[in-house]
Amino acid sequence: MNRYMDMAVNLAKMSAGQTSVNPPVGAVIVKNGRVIGYGAHLKSGELHAERAALNHCTESAEGAEIYVTLEPCSHHGKTPPCTDALIEAGIKRVYYASRDQNSKVDGLNVLKDRGIDTVHLEHPDIDALYRPFYTTMKDKRPFITLKSALTLDGKMARENGDSHWVSNELSRQDVHQLRQQHDGILIGGHTLRNDNPSLTTRLSDNDKHPVPVILLGSQKLKRDMNIFNHPHRPLIFTNNKENMQFKDAAEIYLGHYEINEIMQILYEKYEIASILVEGGSSVHTQFLNDNLFDDLIIYIAPKIFGYSEYQLHNGDLHSQPDLILDHVEKLESDIKLTYRRTPACSQD
Amino acid sequence: MNRYMDMAVNLAKMSAGQTSVNPPVGAVIVKNGRVIGYGAHLKSGELHAERAALNHCTESAEGAEIYVTLEPCSHHGKTPPCTDALIEAGIKRVYYASRDQNSKVDGLNVLKDRGIDTVHLEHPDIDALYRPFYTTMKDKRPFITLKSALTLDGKMARENGDSHWVSNELSRQDVHQLRQQHDGILIGGHTLRNDNPSLTTRLSDNDKHPVPVILLGSQKLKRDMNIFNHPHRPLIFTNNKENMQFKDAAEIYLGHYEINEIMQILYEKYEIASILVEGGSSVHTQFLNDNLFDDLIIYIAPKIFGYSEYQLHNGDLHSQPDLILDHVEKLESDIKLTYRRTPACSQD
Repeated sequence: MNRYMDMAVNLAKMSAGQTSVNPPVGAVIVKNGRVIGYGAHLKSGELHAERAALNHCTESAEGAEIYVTLEPCSHHGKTPPCTDALIEAGIKRVYYASRDQNSKVDGLNVLKDRGIDTVHLEHPDIDALYRPFYTTMKDKRPFITLKSALTLDGKMARENGDSHWVSNELSRQDVHQLRQQHDGILIGGHTLRNDNPSLTTRLSDNDKHPVPVILLGSQKLKRDMNIFNHPHRPLIFTNNKENMQFKDAAEIYLGHYEINEIMQILYEKYEIASILVEGGSSVHTQFLNDNLFDDLIIYIAPKIFGYSEYQLHNGDLHSQPDLILDHVEKLESDIKLTYRRTPACSQD
Repeated sequence: MNRYMDMAVNLAKMSAGQTSVNPPVGAVIVKNGRVIGYGAHLKSGELHAERAALNHCTESAEGAEIYVTLEPCSHHGKTPPCTDALIEAGIKRVYYASRDQNSKVDGLNVLKDRGIDTVHLEHPDIDALYRPFYTTMKDKRPFITLKSALTLDGKMARENGDSHWVSNELSRQDVHQLRQQHDGILIGGHTLRNDNPSLTTRLSDNDKHPVPVILLGSQKLKRDMNIFNHPHRPLIFTNNKENMQFKDAAEIYLGHYEINEIMQILYEKYEIASILVEGGSSVHTQFLNDNLFDDLIIYIAPKIFGYSEYQLHNGDLHSQPDLILDHVEKLESDIKLTYRRTPACSQD
């Protein structure tokens, strides 16, 4: 593994989850065997990693090499092309770890035309880093993470609906990390009514909160719901006209929407490039039935609830999703399992 | 950690699961800073570790020190007291990692009375090594391991009863390791009828097979069941008189037996000191309801079955067992979780 590319990947990881709808990118500039500049893209509309690295340079980048995690952009988006900046700075060689699958981007050819070397370098973390970006790019929808806390026997709650304290404190903290890293958070009407959740990130007083999305169905909103105190106005999908009275507090979509339509709306209208689906049972069942998700994160608590309707999936699952176990993390006596649905990983 | 005691523990581990109803023990003899002998207890009725180590000594053990995982025995069982052998050999000091909780054993005092030093040395693996032994000793029953292969949503089989290929090949191989390490294997009548299992260990042509125990209920045995080809005659608990015609092929207990009665019979009459309970659903439900188990091993496959009656527990669980997650092992996309029920660990 190339150590400069590894530095660039680490820079990119710093901003993962906060660059939507752009991908996270890191760049390191090296001259005469010394790092002379480094940069990360921190937010859509702000400097790209290559320009940030050039800005940070402690000396002229004339004749230097740059290690960048993604093919440099060659088009005018919210910011001008990075290829222009690299050419102007006199960079002689560009090492990149992944080609940009955005058809507007043709950076490698632009650079080659100007006599700049371009060299592909592999990095083991690149696929995981850009899988969300390529998924949204290809499918025009957010990267979808289903998350559930289950007992050993696969239950979300006891038969009486009580779901408190399924998972332990460490697992609940970890869920707040997930919220921080996602643009949106989605729950169903049942969870809204039963748990009255606030759906905020609670790690510090300085958090990034996901936009709440509620699949409310026919249920009625109530003025004292915590969701109305969220830093973002919740997006609510409902087929109950009475809910329109809350139009000042929330963005309300009235009518019947399929899951895939909702995902497109979130991506195209709200630039939500990643969404954390926190269930409950009937919401997860819909996503699983439609085979419409990318990651499945399950926290398993060392408990057994016996019979209960509150399950990960509460019906017949017609097509079995193809799941690969990517990560395992022990959180005291809870275990966090991260599965990847394989079709979402295919790149064309 | 003392390296000689670590060697002794490794010797003991070699024979774990094959010394019933004795515990596994390892011993290392050290003189002038050199290992001069080592031994393990391989089978009940054969040499204890201390005598095996003395037999292996390459020179006189006069004035040597012995590191032994368990307090040496001082009573006549199937073999004579180890304390006699240590005294005769002229051992000057005995390091031990665990006291024997068998009230017949008073080895430390016998040794001290003869002027031999006895020194306790801790070892991190000792509790796990002797937990089965102390459990059987205290409760006069086998150490009970519940094992189940589940989907992510906690199902053992699809609603149509099909349980094939829940877990992957690596997990199934691992189950044969478990069978090798247990004296008995227990299933219910439903599993017998549905799967017609052979309940053998299939690792090589040279395996140790657990004694099959079937909680048959009112079901009827059939002559072509694979269980009748098992190297051991199956022990069958049934309340159906018609099954008595199979008395030549199996040991049959007719009548109603509680789980704890069955466990006592297995231990006291058949010296089954460890039993692997392979379910299915109604058998696991009984053991869980009675809170009568020590380890719970769950293999979780990356599958979702949706609604099915075949669950780890199919009723109301009145008292929640207190489970600690001891081990996590990734087996490709399956995960093996080993939980310890805490009360079984308490020693008095």
